[in-house]
Order: sequence, then structure tokens, then C-alpha cells
Amino acid sequence: MSIVTSPRFRSSPAESWPGYRLPVREPLRLDCGIDFGPFTIAYQTYGTLNPDRSNAVLVCHALSGDQYAADPHPITGKPGWWQSLIGPGRVLDTDRYFLICANVLGGCMGTTGPQEVNPATGEPWALSFPVITIRDMVRAQKRLIEHLEIDSLFCVIGGSMGAMQVLQWAASYPDCIFAAVPLAGAARHSAQNIAFHEVGRQAIMADPDWCGGRYLSLGRNPVQGLAVARMAAHITYLSEAALHRKFGRNLQDRLSVTYGFDADFQVESYLRHQGSTFVDRFDANSYLYITRAMDYFDLAAEHDGSLASAFNGTRSRFCIISFTSDWLFPTSESRQIVHALNAAAANVSFVEIATDNGHDAFLLHEPELFETLRGFLNGCAEHRGLGRSP
Amino acid sequence: MSIVTSPRFRSSPAESWPGYRLPVREPLRLDCGIDFGPFTIAYQTYGTLNPDRSNAVLVCHALSGDQYAADPHPITGKPGWWQSLIGPGRVLDTDRYFLICANVLGGCMGTTGPQEVNPATGEPWALSFPVITIRDMVRAQKRLIEHLEIDSLFCVIGGSMGAMQVLQWAASYPDCIFAAVPLAGAARHSAQNIAFHEVGRQAIMADPDWCGGRYLSLGRNPVQGLAVARMAAHITYLSEAALHRKFGRNLQDRLSVTYGFDADFQVESYLRHQGSTFVDRFDANSYLYITRAMDYFDLAAEHDGSLASAFNGTRSRFCIISFTSDWLFPTSESRQIVHALNAAAANVSFVEIATDNGHDAFLLHEPELFETLRGFLNGCAEHRGLGRSP
Repeated sequence: MSIVTSPRFRSSPAESWPGYRLPVREPLRLDCGIDFGPFTIAYQTYGTLNPDRSNAVLVCHALSGDQYAADPHPITGKPGWWQSLIGPGRVLDTDRYFLICANVLGGCMGTTGPQEVNPATGEPWALSFPVITIRDMVRAQKRLIEHLEIDSLFCVIGGSMGAMQVLQWAASYPDCIFAAVPLAGAARHSAQNIAFHEVGRQAIMADPDWCGGRYLSLGRNPVQGLAVARMAAHITYLSEAALHRKFGRNLQDRLSVTYGFDADFQVESYLRHQGSTFVDRFDANSYLYITRAMDYFDLAAEHDGSLASAFNGTRSRFCIISFTSDWLFPTSESRQIVHALNAAAANVSFVEIATDNGHDAFLLHEPELFETLRGFLNGCAEHRGLGRSP
Repeated sequence: MSIVTSPRFRSSPAESWPGYRLPVREPLRLDCGIDFGPFTIAYQTYGTLNPDRSNAVLVCHALSGDQYAADPHPITGKPGWWQSLIGPGRVLDTDRYFLICANVLGGCMGTTGPQEVNPATGEPWALSFPVITIRDMVRAQKRLIEHLEIDSLFCVIGGSMGAMQVLQWAASYPDCIFAAVPLAGAARHSAQNIAFHEVGRQAIMADPDWCGGRYLSLGRNPVQGLAVARMAAHITYLSEAALHRKFGRNLQDRLSVTYGFDADFQVESYLRHQGSTFVDRFDANSYLYITRAMDYFDLAAEHDGSLASAFNGTRSRFCIISFTSDWLFPTSESRQIVHALNAAAANVSFVEIATDNGHDAFLLHEPELFETLRGFLNGCAEHRGLGRSP
């Protein structure tokens, strides 16, 4: 009854994946106290950097995302996760902006993470990889931006964990970002969200093929555990209303229930599919590390408990966006960010978009989201001297 | 990093558990079409049946509950799950009512379920146990009530899956129940709830110690999978507000995060504890069967899609209770029941209780719940001729 035929491994070698690789030689001082490096950042770009180097937009991906925001995924062949937003004439207009999207530190699509070989041992890092934070991810991105000789990003934008990175950029490097757009985000990970992450991690670590994290060295892969983790997480990305609208209690290719444990219901079949396809493109240890980074995120805690202090003196323009049916990162979380930005006298817009698409709304075709982003970015572009909108 | 030291088995033999056992010889025709039997019903009673046999209250337990509603659990030693509600002078007053609580069919506390030995094979039933429904559970309970020579129950009461049984009693045996109190329930299991159950089942079935369900015959026990299932489910029983109030981002016995995968946060430690203690008292296959019964529950579907038809001509008195912060069985589900009962011209009260305790509120000390139940039961008792409240 396994939903994943085990063992499976990612079939396509990382060397063949398109995009850029930046080797970073100077070690990075991580929050855990370790000087980490050298390491590699894998990234994609879309559009052209203007002569002023003033039109760069950093796109930050979410937990299960990667740098392939606007071109086909090298393993799945599926369109980029923000394909609908990025392109000529689109909201993130590649005729106008230079977009950069980097795989996060700890990821598994080319940037150094636990599945990469530790040069000191010749074995994959596995659990000897240092536990990283959202701030560490942003520190690594800062190296990339410096390498590209960009002093100031026009905008940093991202949803969910991407929004955490946006907020961290605003707090860590306020003079380097002109505009910031955190979507469906929070300034700290909630108890409920930590709890869901812990379930996913326990599902992975309970899989005997996890082998204390050493599965790659042993030729194994905890695909069952990772699939269960993905299934649990996937429920939290959707709203109850969307699940009801999409699936309800509809049966999967049958006229009546079978009185068994097959996927009688469409929603079961859909979830199993989400679990079994995820393991083809994601590394289980990366899942542990990235969820942990999200759990640890608490921007106020970095500033003596005052979120407003994180944004003191900022001159960036903020557009905070939440979605009514998002129960994972509810509007109340975005409101806290808005309150803190107001307390810091920042330039902030706040839009709550009515949709039943839940947390996933930031990845979907939401006309009001697109219009909001277009308006905000056009306004910022004018102030930045990037010219009127075409 | 396992949260459960495997393998573990329930240490206390079923024969030593207190309470009654009713052997049922006449087979039961199940919804799946099988004539099942003989089988055993394990049950507890509290209080005394009056000479008229008119003061019996059937208490229906939830997914992870059992018949020990008001005395210590024979495995864990913990107080009964409704100890606060049941006793002399309490809301379910044992000086006044005769309470009956039976372990459901498919359960693992003495009533026949997949862990019992199939007399035809001499092996535990495991997955050869028939898939049962809420209606099958209620059919079995009806046999018990007949055995006790009770023609009409004063009240059937229960929360969550217990509420499903209450509604099924009202639909299947309307002339046998004077009053019905479904708490935190629904007339059909939602897509989101099916999805959460499917995650739990996949966690169990992904555990290699599950062995296609044959773990008992093989001396194994899928405790890791069952623990993960329980952890995921437990999150859904609490509200985000309650998790935030109880745990927030508090650390567990440490001053700062450890940059590792131990339970840094109290909420992680709490969840792991919930998972690891659950496996001591629950059977993994029972968990599969009972969640499946809940998934299959759709009272309207049994009546050509009309929920009101399920209650046509009922003379029972209904008190429907929901809790504001219950997102697993939200108030909207209870409202649908109320609408259907109104359409059937039934005698119905509806109370939504404000609490941040989430779905678990029906198990906790909620003063407004207690007052509501006391008032409703007193009124019904007067009409039933059980005398004024003491």
C-alpha cells in the first residue's frame, strides 16, 4: 500500500541543470557560530541588468521552491513556480526588470545543502551540515548580490518563507533595498506552524531509510517519510473551502466506496500524488534543514523583542499582502508586520486579498494580487527613476 | 532520533481490564454487505437503571476514546475522558441517570476489532477485518441496548466521532432516543478532514513494522507511524490561539535554540509526548479502521442527499453544540445539522460556545458547555418524567 515505490532517487544529475553557479570562497559566519565555506549558490536570472544597475529584483522562494521561478523545472519539466508573474509585459516584467532567483542555502537544487559532499570528508554533509537560519540564507544571497555588483536592489519579493527572507533583507540590509514585498508571510513562525513542521520531520526521521540522515552514503532514500511530510504540509497550504470546492467528497474513478484503504476519495488520490511526486525533486535532509530555519525565524527576537526596532530608520517602501483564507500565515501575522512598520514610520501599504485559495494563493493566478503588485511596482519604479510603465 | 523506543506493546492484558463484556452471537449485517459475528462488545456503566428503564444515557466516544469515560484507564491509569462531566451531582448525574459507554466496533479496548483473533483462522483479523461504518458501530450499540432491555434511551450524547454516532442513532432509531446531543460534530466528514486522516493512515502504512497490517502475528508494532499519525491529528484538535497561549515560541528547558533537531520548542516536546504515549494504549489497525469509518460518514447520502430526510418525523429533542475555535468540526457543520433539523420540524436547540480550546473543548472544563448541558438535560428529564432536578 506504499504510495511511493522505494527506493527512488532524483534521476537528473545536478551538473546538467541549467542556470548559474557562484562559488563563494570567503566563509560565511552563520548564526550558529560556524564559519561556513566555501560554498556554491545556484541561481537563475531573467531580463537584463540596466547600465545603472538599478532595476534588479530579488525573488525569494518558499520551502519547497527553488531558483526555477520562470523556466521549466529540470527534474519535473513543469513550468516555473512564478511563471504566471514573470515574463515580458507581466507583473515582474522582464523587459523592465532584472530578476534574480537563487536556491537557498541548505536547499537541494544546486546551492550547497546537506546532500552536497563535504570536501573535508568526501561524504555528503547529511546531519553534519550546520543548521542554518533565514538570516543565513539572506547573508548568502547578499554575497550573490555583491558578486553581481548591485549596490541596491530595486525590490525583494517572495511569499511564505520567501516573505521571511524579504523581511530579513529589510532588517539586515535596509540601505540595499528600495522596495520590499512580503506575501503571505510572518515576522515569526507560530506555534502551530512549528508543530506542523515537527510532524513532517518526525515522519522523515521515522523512516528506516533515513538512517540517521546518512541515507545518501548508504544508497537509500527515505521517500515514504518525505511523502507523508509533504502530504501533511500540503493540507495546510489549501483552505477548507478550496478542498471542498475542488474535491468535496467526490469519489476517485468509482461509483461507490470500496470498504477498503485504497484512495476512494479524490482528495486522497490528490494528496498521495502530491506526496509521491515531491520525493522525485526534493531531498529529505534539505526538508529538515529548511523547515528548521523557518521555525527559528523570529525577527523581533533579533531586536530585543521589538519588531518595530527591526525596521528603525528604514527608507524602503513596503507592500504587505495577505490572503483571507490563508490559515497557515493568516492576515493577523501580516497585520503585526504592518503595525511594526507603522511604528517605525515606514512607507507601507497593506492589502488583504479575498480568495478561497488559502496559503497557496501567492502561487496562483489571483487577479487582485497581480493588479496590486503591478500598481505598487509601477509606483516604486517611477520613484526609482526607472521610467513610467510601458 | 526516534520519539518512540520500538517495538512497544500494550503491556496490560485485555482480560484484566475492568468492565462488562457482551458476547453477541447473532451476526450483524454490515454496510459492506458482510454478516459479521459473533463478536464482543466491551462496555462500562455508571449509575443505576431505574425500574421504568427510562433513565439510560448512551455516551458515544470519539476516535481515540474508549468505554472508560468516568473511571481510570486500565493502561494509562489516567482519569476517564469525561470524568469532569460524569458523577454524582455532575452534569451527567450518576445519581439520576444510568450511563452506558461502549467501546466502538473496530476499537481496541475489548470490543471486537482488527487486533482480536479471527476464530476462523486463529490469527488476528488485521486487514481481513471488515471495513466498518459509523452506522455499523451504532448497529452494534443497538444490540447492547436491546440486551440491557432498554426500549428507549433517555439521551445519546457524544463529541466528534461520538456526535456522528448520535446523529446516526437519531436517523436509524428515532423512536429509541428521547434526546440527542451531538457536540463538535458534523453530518458528513469534510474533504479537509478526510485529508488529515489519510496522512495519518499513510504514516502508519509507511512504517515497515506495519507489515501490511500483519504486525501482531509477526511480533512487531508500527509505533513510529502511529505516533506520527497521532501528532498530526493532535494539532487539528487544538486552535492556533490555544497553541500560542500554551506554548507560543517558548523553549523547552533551554535558554536558546540549539541549532539542531532536538525538541527546542515546548510545542515540539508536547507533540512528541502525545505521539509516544498514544502508542501505549492504541492499536494501529484500529486507527486505520476508525478513521475510515469517519471518512465514510455522510448522513445525507444515506437519504438521497437530503439531510432533512434523515430526521423526518423525529420526535427526539436535539441540542447541537459547537465551539468557536474548532476548525476541525467548525460551527458551519453544526449549522447544517440545525438547518436540516429545522426543515424536518424537529425540536432543536443550538449553542455555539465561545472558547479558544478548539475541537478538544468538548473534553475540557468549559463552564458554558456544562451549564448548557445541565439545562437541556434537566428540561428533557422533566418531560421524560424523571422528576425535577435535585
